Order: sequence, then C-alpha cells, then structure tokens
Amino acid sequence: MSNTLGDKIKVTIFGQSHSEAIGCVIDGFPAGFKPDMEKVRKFMSRRAPGKGEHTTARKESDAPRVVSGLADGATCGAPICAMIENGDVRSGDYGEIARKPRPGHADYTAFVKYGGSNDVRGGGQFSGRLTAPLCFAGALCMQYLETKGIRIAARASETAGISDAPLDIEKLFAVAEKPFPAIDGGAAEKMLAAIASAKEAGDSVGGVIECVVIGLPAGIGEPMFGGVENEIARAVFGVPAVKGIEFGAGFSAARMKGSENNDPFEYKDGAVVCGTNNAGGILGGITNGMPVVFRCAIKPTPSVALPQKTVDVETGENATLEIKGRHDPCIVPRAVPAIEAAAAIAILNLIP
Amino acid sequence: MSNTLGDKIKVTIFGQSHSEAIGCVIDGFPAGFKPDMEKVRKFMSRRAPGKGEHTTARKESDAPRVVSGLADGATCGAPICAMIENGDVRSGDYGEIARKPRPGHADYTAFVKYGGSNDVRGGGQFSGRLTAPLCFAGALCMQYLETKGIRIAARASETAGISDAPLDIEKLFAVAEKPFPAIDGGAAEKMLAAIASAKEAGDSVGGVIECVVIGLPAGIGEPMFGGVENEIARAVFGVPAVKGIEFGAGFSAARMKGSENNDPFEYKDGAVVCGTNNAGGILGGITNGMPVVFRCAIKPTPSVALPQKTVDVETGENATLEIKGRHDPCIVPRAVPAIEAAAAIAILNLIP
Amino acid sequence: MSNTLGDKIKVTIFGQSHSEAIGCVIDGFPAGFKPDMEKVRKFMSRRAPGKGEHTTARKESDAPRVVSGLADGATCGAPICAMIENGDVRSGDYGEIARKPRPGHADYTAFVKYGGSNDVRGGGQFSGRLTAPLCFAGALCMQYLETKGIRIAARASETAGISDAPLDIEKLFAVAEKPFPAIDGGAAEKMLAAIASAKEAGDSVGGVIECVVIGLPAGIGEPMFGGVENEIARAVFGVPAVKGIEFGAGFSAARMKGSENNDPFEYKDGAVVCGTNNAGGILGGITNGMPVVFRCAIKPTPSVALPQKTVDVETGENATLEIKGRHDPCIVPRAVPAIEAAAAIAILNLIP
Amino acid sequence: MSNTLGDKIKVTIFGQSHSEAIGCVIDGFPAGFKPDMEKVRKFMSRRAPGKGEHTTARKESDAPRVVSGLADGATCGAPICAMIENGDVRSGDYGEIARKPRPGHADYTAFVKYGGSNDVRGGGQFSGRLTAPLCFAGALCMQYLETKGIRIAARASETAGISDAPLDIEKLFAVAEKPFPAIDGGAAEKMLAAIASAKEAGDSVGGVIECVVIGLPAGIGEPMFGGVENEIARAVFGVPAVKGIEFGAGFSAARMKGSENNDPFEYKDGAVVCGTNNAGGILGGITNGMPVVFRCAIKPTPSVALPQKTVDVETGENATLEIKGRHDPCIVPRAVPAIEAAAAIAILNLIP
Repeated sequence: MSNTLGDKIKVTIFGQSHSEAIGCVIDGFPAGFKPDMEKVRKFMSRRAPGKGEHTTARKESDAPRVVSGLADGATCGAPICAMIENGDVRSGDYGEIARKPRPGHADYTAFVKYGGSNDVRGGGQFSGRLTAPLCFAGALCMQYLETKGIRIAARASETAGISDAPLDIEKLFAVAEKPFPAIDGGAAEKMLAAIASAKEAGDSVGGVIECVVIGLPAGIGEPMFGGVENEIARAVFGVPAVKGIEFGAGFSAARMKGSENNDPFEYKDGAVVCGTNNAGGILGGITNGMPVVFRCAIKPTPSVALPQKTVDVETGENATLEIKGRHDPCIVPRAVPAIEAAAAIAILNLIP
Repeated sequence: MSNTLGDKIKVTIFGQSHSEAIGCVIDGFPAGFKPDMEKVRKFMSRRAPGKGEHTTARKESDAPRVVSGLADGATCGAPICAMIENGDVRSGDYGEIARKPRPGHADYTAFVKYGGSNDVRGGGQFSGRLTAPLCFAGALCMQYLETKGIRIAARASETAGISDAPLDIEKLFAVAEKPFPAIDGGAAEKMLAAIASAKEAGDSVGGVIECVVIGLPAGIGEPMFGGVENEIARAVFGVPAVKGIEFGAGFSAARMKGSENNDPFEYKDGAVVCGTNNAGGILGGITNGMPVVFRCAIKPTPSVALPQKTVDVETGENATLEIKGRHDPCIVPRAVPAIEAAAAIAILNLIP
Repeated sequence: MSNTLGDKIKVTIFGQSHSEAIGCVIDGFPAGFKPDMEKVRKFMSRRAPGKGEHTTARKESDAPRVVSGLADGATCGAPICAMIENGDVRSGDYGEIARKPRPGHADYTAFVKYGGSNDVRGGGQFSGRLTAPLCFAGALCMQYLETKGIRIAARASETAGISDAPLDIEKLFAVAEKPFPAIDGGAAEKMLAAIASAKEAGDSVGGVIECVVIGLPAGIGEPMFGGVENEIARAVFGVPAVKGIEFGAGFSAARMKGSENNDPFEYKDGAVVCGTNNAGGILGGITNGMPVVFRCAIKPTPSVALPQKTVDVETGENATLEIKGRHDPCIVPRAVPAIEAAAAIAILNLIP
Repeated sequence: MSNTLGDKIKVTIFGQSHSEAIGCVIDGFPAGFKPDMEKVRKFMSRRAPGKGEHTTARKESDAPRVVSGLADGATCGAPICAMIENGDVRSGDYGEIARKPRPGHADYTAFVKYGGSNDVRGGGQFSGRLTAPLCFAGALCMQYLETKGIRIAARASETAGISDAPLDIEKLFAVAEKPFPAIDGGAAEKMLAAIASAKEAGDSVGGVIECVVIGLPAGIGEPMFGGVENEIARAVFGVPAVKGIEFGAGFSAARMKGSENNDPFEYKDGAVVCGTNNAGGILGGITNGMPVVFRCAIKPTPSVALPQKTVDVETGENATLEIKGRHDPCIVPRAVPAIEAAAAIAILNLIP
C-alpha cells in the first residue's frame, strides 16, 4: 500500500528486520541495461554496518541475490527482484519491546495501527535495515542515470551540530570514497569524536544530509503535486529518521528578501544558467538546469542505552526501559547512501 | 498527471491565472455530507487578495460554483466539481514574460518543459491563484474532518525574520479570526511593518508557516512511502513558494541528543501521551496521538518591482526585467489557509 | 476515486444527469496541440440525442466550454477542463425512483453504496449522459493520435440480433458519416426497424459494438496487468451498459484449435505482419502491429415502458414500476462514439 | 509498471519462466491474519503441472517460501513476499525462439518492445508459470475473504467446444476437489478426450472459464472506471491466454429485450434479491447482492507441435518453426485457479 514508490518506475520494498529475507522489486526499469554488480555492492557497502566505531556491530552480509529481471546479465523488461537473506539475527534481544514501546521508535504506533500484530523484532518493517534494498534499487537507478549524464552525491553536511565545509560539488563527489562522508577532513574528525562521545554516554546524535543531483536538464518535473520537490520529499521521508527536507536556500529563503533570493538568469556559453542557486535547481516544481540541491534533517538514533520513560501496554502502567543490543550512536553516515538512493529512484521516475 | 492529489480522495486542480475559469474536482468524498457553504466562503476569504496593504490589488470574486457532486445540498457520491470564473483579468500586464522569464518564477522552466506552449499570462498554471480551488477542496475536507473531531490550524510563525510567540494550540485556533495570522498581536504588527517596508522598497519578504492537526487518533498513516510525513510533504510542496518542510523538532532535532529528542511515553487519564512532542506526532510515518506539527518555509514573493537580471529567450541575450502589475510583497498570510487545505486533503486521504 | 482513468493521461469525469453541469478534466495531455473544436463538436454530435426515432427526445446542447488548458487555442500543459451545462432538465419525471429502484439500473446499488444519499434524478452519476464529457476527452485524444498515424473507428456490428456485414476496415472508417453506424446499409435498415419495433412494444434492444485501432506500432502495452487488453477493458467497462468485451477472435478462439487460432507471422514489404488477426493485434498484452480489434456487448436499455417488478425500499414491500419519460429504445448507435472515446484515452495513455 | 495490481491491496508479480526464482509481494494485506499454508499449497496444486495427461510434464515444486510479512505465523502489516525457486529448468529447449517468434506467443511483441533484450527462455515474463505466484496471492486473498463470508469458485464451463452442465452454485464449489474442474462428470470425460485427441494431433484446444463470487454484500465497487467489472477485467486479462470476459448474460444480453434482460427486484426473507441474474450481480459497476458471475475466453495453447509459419528476425526471411519441449495441449483446467486468484485480488481490493 505504501511500500511502493513511483509511477513509471515502481520500487516495492519488502521485509522486516528479522524476517527470513528482505528485498525489493523494481518494475518498469529500462530493458537492455547491464548493471555493474560490483559497483552495486560497493554502493551498498557504504550503508552496511560494522565498518567502524560509529556503526552497529551486527554483521550483515547484505549481499543481494537478483532472482529475476535479468537475462544474460542485462535487464530484460521483467521486474527486477533482489533478495537479501537475514542471516545474523538475535531475536532474543528484543523481547521487552512488545510490552514497552521504545520512545522515538515506531513500536507504539505500529502496535496501535496493526492491533498488536506488528512484528516487534528489531523494529520489524520500520527498521533501518530496510534501507539495504532501498540502496540496491537506488544503486541501479543511479547507474542508469549516469548513462544519461545525471549524477547524485550526498554528504553529512552537519553531524551533532558540527558543520562540514560549504558545498563544493567536485569535492562532494569524492566523499563516497572517504571513511566518513564529509568534505572537510577536520570536520569529519570532530563529527566522529562527537559520535564516539555520545556512544560513551549511552546517547546518540543526529545531523543533516545534503544531496546534490547534477546533469539534470531543464524541464524535468510535473507541476503542482508532481514536482521534483514533491517527489523527492515523498521518497526521502521513506528513509527512517528523516524529519525535515529543504531545497536550495530552504528555510533560509524565508528570511531573505525577494531581490536576494531570486536567482537571476544569464547566458553562459550559450546556455541559460543562474548565478546563484537559492532555488536548488527547481522552479515551479520543474528543474531549471542548475544542480538540484536538498538537505534533510536526520534525528538522533532513538535507541539510546540510557534508561527511558515509557509505558507498559500490558499492565497499563508507566514503566522504565533500558534498551540493550547493538545500535548506531549516529545513523547519519549510513543514511547518506540511502538518501542518494531515494533521490535516484525519484529522479528516474521523473525522467521522460 | 500531477494536478491530482490523493488515492482514496482524489483532488484534481485545474486552471491558469488567466484561463476562463479555475476549479477542482474532488472524487471519493464521503456521501451524505452537507457542506456549510458559508463556512467554505469564509475559509476561502482568508486567502483572497484585496484584504489589506500586504496583498495584491487584483479583485477576485473567488466565489466557487459547485456544479456537480451535490444533491439536495448534500454530497451524493459523485465527484464534486467547483468552478471559479476568472473575471478581473488584465492580460496586457504580462506580455514581456514570454520573452524574459522572471527570476524565481516558473516562466523559464515551463517554457522549456512545454516547448514554448506554456500559458505565460499571469504565471499560467503556476500562479498562486490556483490555491483558490485548493482552498475550496481543503475547506470541504476540513469540515468533514471536524465531524471526526480532527481540526487543523496554521499561522505565520515567522515573517521577514520576525518570530511569532511560541506555539500555543488554543491561541493558534483563534488565529483565523484575526486580520493577520499570528498568535502575538505585537509580532503581527512588526510583521506587517516589515511587509510594508519591503513593498515600499519594491521588494518582498518570506516566512515560515506552522500548521497543527489535532484530534488525530494514533495509528494513522502507512509505513515507508505512505507515511503522514510523506503525504503531507507531497501535498504541501504543491503550494507555490514552499521550499522546505519539517515535522516536530525538524532540523532542530538534528542538533539534539537522542535522549533529549525522544518523546517519553506516559499514561495520562488512561491514554498514552508524550510529555514532549519533538516527533511532531509521527513515529515511523504513523500518528502517535499527539498533535501533528509541521512548519514550511515560504520563499519571498519572486515578483519584485526592482529591476532584475534575466535572459531574453528570443534574442538569446542577457536582459533586464522590470515587473509591473499587482503583486503581494509577502504571500505568507494568504498561504496560511492554503497550507491548512493541503494538510486537510492529505489527512482525509489517510483516514481509513 | 474511480471517475479517473489513466496514469500518464488522467481523464476525470464529473457530473450527474441533473447536476448544474457535467464535464471532464484531462491532465497530462501533450502541450502545443491545437484541437480542431469543430471536429470535436462533430464527434460529440454522434452520441448526442435527438437525432432520430431511435434516440431520446431530450434536447441537449452538449456544447462543451473549455475553461482551462488552452492558451491561444493550443494546449499549454495545464489540465484541460471542459464543461457542459445541463440545460434541459425535467427533474419531476424521476421522483418515484428514490423509492422504487429501476431494474437493470444502478438505482438500487447506488442507494446501498451511498446510504441513500445518491442523486436519483435521471440516474445521477450513472446516467449515460456522462458519456458526453467522455466523448469530449476521447475526441481530443483521437485527434492527437491521428497526428501519430493512429486512427480509431467503431460500428454497431450487431443490433437486436441482426448482424452487420463482416469487418471491412476501409468501410468501417466511413461509418461515422452515416446516419446509422453500420457498414451494410441493408443491415442498418433492419436494425432500425427492430429498434422501432421494440420502441412500439415499450421495450428495448441491445447489440454489439466492434472497434478497431489502426496505425499502432508493434511494442505498445505493458505486460501482465498493464496490457492493451487490460487497459481497454478497464476503460470500456466505464461506458454504461457494457457487459462484455472480447479481443480478436475472442470467445470464438475458445472453440478453435491452436493451429487455427495462431496468427502466422510473415514478411510483407519488409514488415512483419500476420495473415490472420485472431489475436486482435495483441500478444502478451502488447501490440504486434496488426489492427487492434475488440467487440463489446451492450445490454438493452434498462428503461423500458413496460411495467416491471421491483421493490419499494420505503415500505419494504414488493412493488410495480412504470417508467415514464424519454428513453432510447437502443443505445447502441449513441454508444459507438463512446467506445471509440474510451479506447482513444486508453491508447493515448499507453503510447510512450 | 504493470506487474502490480490493485490500489488498497497491491500485488506485484515478479520472475520469468527461467529466472532464478519467481514470486510476489502483497502490500496492504490486513494484519493479524493467520494464513493456512496447507490450504494455500492445496490451492496452488490445482494449477501445478504434472498432474495428468493434459498438463505439461515439467516438474515444478511450486512450494512458496514466505520470506516476509509474517510474525509468529500471522500477517504483521509488512508486505508479504513469497518466493518460488525455479528448479527444473531446461533452457536448451528454447534457443530457436530468439530468432523465430512463436505464433500466438509474446515472443515477437516482447522482442519489439524491449529492443531484443527480452528473456526468451520459456516465454520469459510472459510464461504461464507466472500464474503460480498469482495463485499464491489469490489463495491468501481468498482465505481472508472467506472470513467475511465471501467465496469464489470457477470451472471449465466449456472446453474444446464441449459445454459443462448449466451453472449450479453448490456443485460449482465442489469442483476444486475433482480431477477435472467441471460440474458434470460426463462432460469432463469428453473434455479430457478432446484434449488428448488434440495432443495426439500435435495441436491444442481452448475453452471458457466461468467464475462465481458469492457472499458479496450489495454496494461494493466504485462507479465508472472503478467498477467491479472494470477491476475484475483488468485483473483477469493479466492471466495469459484470456481473450474475452463477460459478466452475467454478457454477449447474450446483447440479443435480449430489455424486459427480458432486466433482473426484477423482490423481497425474499427481508432481503432484496433478483429472480434472475442477467446482470451477473453488478449494476452500474456496483454489486447488488446477487452472485457475481463472469466467464472468460481462454484461447488454445499457442505452443503446438505442428510446424508453423513464422519469420526469422535475424535473416529477415520467412521461416518455419517446430516447437519442441513440454507444453499443455489445453491450459483451461490449470487456468481455473488462476482466474479465481485474479478475481480474489480484485475483490479484496474493492472491499472497504
């Protein structure tokens, strides 16, 4: 009902944190495209856990098995289904959640919505683990978009209140190769230190992810409810922990004068460009040929080790909860490729 | 393709600034509901121009004529079509736009998208005037939601950098009766002064609109791409000039610790509530029973009287543009009911 | 919810038999197309009543007023809304229906579905009158398809059990100019006689409409649930009184051997063609380049003058109903352009 | 793009005849339902090959592995994904098809649509094998519908021109237990004999499947393009080989008088019923409380052993094709559960 994104390209995500497998089906992907699976795996490894201090210790193979949609290694027009088996699952860690919903998580809302039938193990279908198949789908879309000259990159523009350097598109596209997705190495170190410190305190931190799409021609997007902003927002709010999104100058534009915020048009080498990009490449929902730029707010991981107040839905009394198990003190770095993936699906869906 | 919002309730908006008429079709609205048309008109008058110094001088009757969907004054299950004739149209004002796209407007992007066939008069289908039928549709949805105990209100929480008082839900719901939609009368005066000053300078200002939905039970919304955040964002980016949206603590959450940002659950009078509402009433895309709170960034009106740099697409040379005609120096107050309307449609679409 | 057809091209039909107006909104229509409005009116006149003995005496102007979507007479990318005012309405004729549902009509099912709030006047939203805006939308789609070399025509291949001559595509495309839409003049006379005789007896007759789409290239249509058959069927069952549809040999294919039914491929003038067309131009839901051929069953007009058994939902007792007023003894000829229109929308929606 | 069926319940089918696996994802299925997997397997075995003389010799395990959507054996609100591994695959049989499209199959249309990238092995995504996951999805929907008192059954009402006994609903629901899905044992024997005879001749036969839905309350279905007929037709044309569908009297209604075809309403035990059911339980697209009855035309299996004329797309010359391998001389019996499944999905999608 809602695990499907897109109209022309339909991506359906399935699975729970502790179901037998998770995966996705991509319907409507162009036929005759040979995905570079090694590149897909490399992309997915950017969101995989277990890379460093700041990520959960859970080992996930995350190796997607493409069970349909290919013939001789090329897309054949049939829906592409990729499966990721859920190997390393310790369900025992999560027993208490069924009774005591974790603050900041979907435990309580899912409990109400599904009348208590929701899968509580590891957050069920609301787990960040579901961004693995999202990243698979996004990786394929990105590879295809690259053949059209469209490229997407994102970074942690802010973590724990620490800002990265101002946006530099060339450096941004080098971030994927770095151990931490920030442009400025010094800022990255401070961010990592803040994450480590939060972890030590049994706490967590959030941040802001900035994403840029380059190479999009002018004229992409539909008016009103089908604009680039509508479609990217709809996709990106599908990534757990996103609580806000802004395009171009975004909330800062609200404090500008019109004469400052308007991006003047000019001819450059025969092409219409803007000297500034406060619009984030989008006017009236439609691309103007400038880079599409957006940022999204990532809340701090709700799973903190500190004791928290909650309720016990069985006894109907207030309760205290201590979350055990393996949790990222900050999901920002792992969410970076997930945001790129969501944007890629939204963009491919809009390309004629 | 994109002028339709919703699945269960489908709202289709049609019209251009200077077409013969504008309007909307609402399909799937519950049958047997008697809309209070006086209340609809009152709601729509909140977005109508010509109320004061800060709004455009164009006279619009904005009186919707409901041509279908009613029998004996009650909804009958057939799609509701409402028409607003475009009476006071001075097309002569807009001639130059066909050649010189206005910075910050959709003139250029529409020109590219539609190969020069776009309606340039008054911004065509991208005109803020299209929020009139949106408000009609939203007014109907709000009235119906009220019968379920669900109420929606918004305000200018910030204009030209001037902040309104902190959110007070009781006062928020009184804002619709005020001449300017702010809680704090003193702040409203300062905002109006800033708007007047911008107007005098041939410039414009933007702001932030905060919107609250109360009375929503827990358990509303679908996971992943069909969550309350996804659906509200998709609707709200359909209102021209919106460049960002955040829910609950939003971008501030990105700077909080998990232990601060998590809203602890507790029992109050037998119901599960949260002491804080940093989540803005939404966890995992699903309501938790707390008020849904979101804010959106409204950019300053792109139509400013000051001369602006642009291009002349006929000559292929850089050019200067002076926009004449009637324009709001700030659309924030008039956008407030449009945001409420967009939220109302999104919410009604999610209610089972 | 259901008055909208299509994904790429979305056509929304609104109105009831006796609402102030009826009409349609077409979203996603290609920009830059100049519809020939005289041709549209001519197309619509084929379904208009009052042309002869076999049609209802109700006078409908059916003159569509295009209130949006055009600029300088060409489509501008904005949704096209066309309105038809409901002038000649005699509501008094229909009072009894609220209590005594007419057999064969949607009175009872609408009564149950909408809890008694349905518009009973003239059949409300279920009236055949709603095919007028469908024909408007279809006429536009057909004109556009013609620019791509795609043409659509239909005929009454059977009326009251009387068959027209076998399909002859050249003659089929001349049928629109005839007073009765059959290829064979002699058959047409017999059909008209059968209709007149049914009218005299206070009864009605049905028939079969055969529709052909030529000029469609091979490779159009999506597999499984998005095939040409799925999409045409979905559109055509939106025309009241359609109770069946078959493609190519259809139900006859069920009685053939595979060796007979398979259409052998061969090269003709360098193109792949089939010697026969039992598949009706569709294999696996996708066009093979041969004409798309389908037939639909049109039930006899349910409004007959003869007394009929029904129930009185107010008293809860069995009752007898005598339908007065103006009704077609056979809707087949007027339904012919409606079927063409439905097919045109479905086809335009499938063209890349 | 098209492998997804439904709005409220979305069923996505994936896989090709010879891909690693085939399967489906069901999104929006009600939470808290414990499917009886033994019953699912039994249902699926009705379409499985290898049961008798009249079915292909290919061995399929068809055992679905549910990899997501369940927790403790009950649906948990997350999408249900079921996988069927493609074990017994002999790709070597199909090599020639890449050059010489089989008449009556989608080889040629897929070749054109996908620019030669389509999966030719075993018909790729157009293979009847894809009805296995459709049956899985349908089985789940049927089980759920049964808890609402809604039951679905189908039969081969005609095979190779041989008719089964007239519809008897009680006997119809016993057909699933029989070796051949016909009411009348004598007719079944004749049908089997005709199938055997066609096989011997290297040919194939088709038939008609009649399907009935009982227990549906009045008032189900949406008007115009969302009616029960539209939705069932859209689903059923997703089953390969369906070339026509009719509801109630269907094409026979086209030859009736209105006074004959109209189903008179009457009260029976306090309920509104119809003495006849020419409408097939549907008026205006909405159920009237009578059984929903429809029939679909199944063309003869296009894979026949007899030599056939076709083209060689590599040489650009006419050619002759002899299809080898394992093929059903008649798919009617195996298509019976697939039609039930398609109907079940369509119906569950319409239930409020």
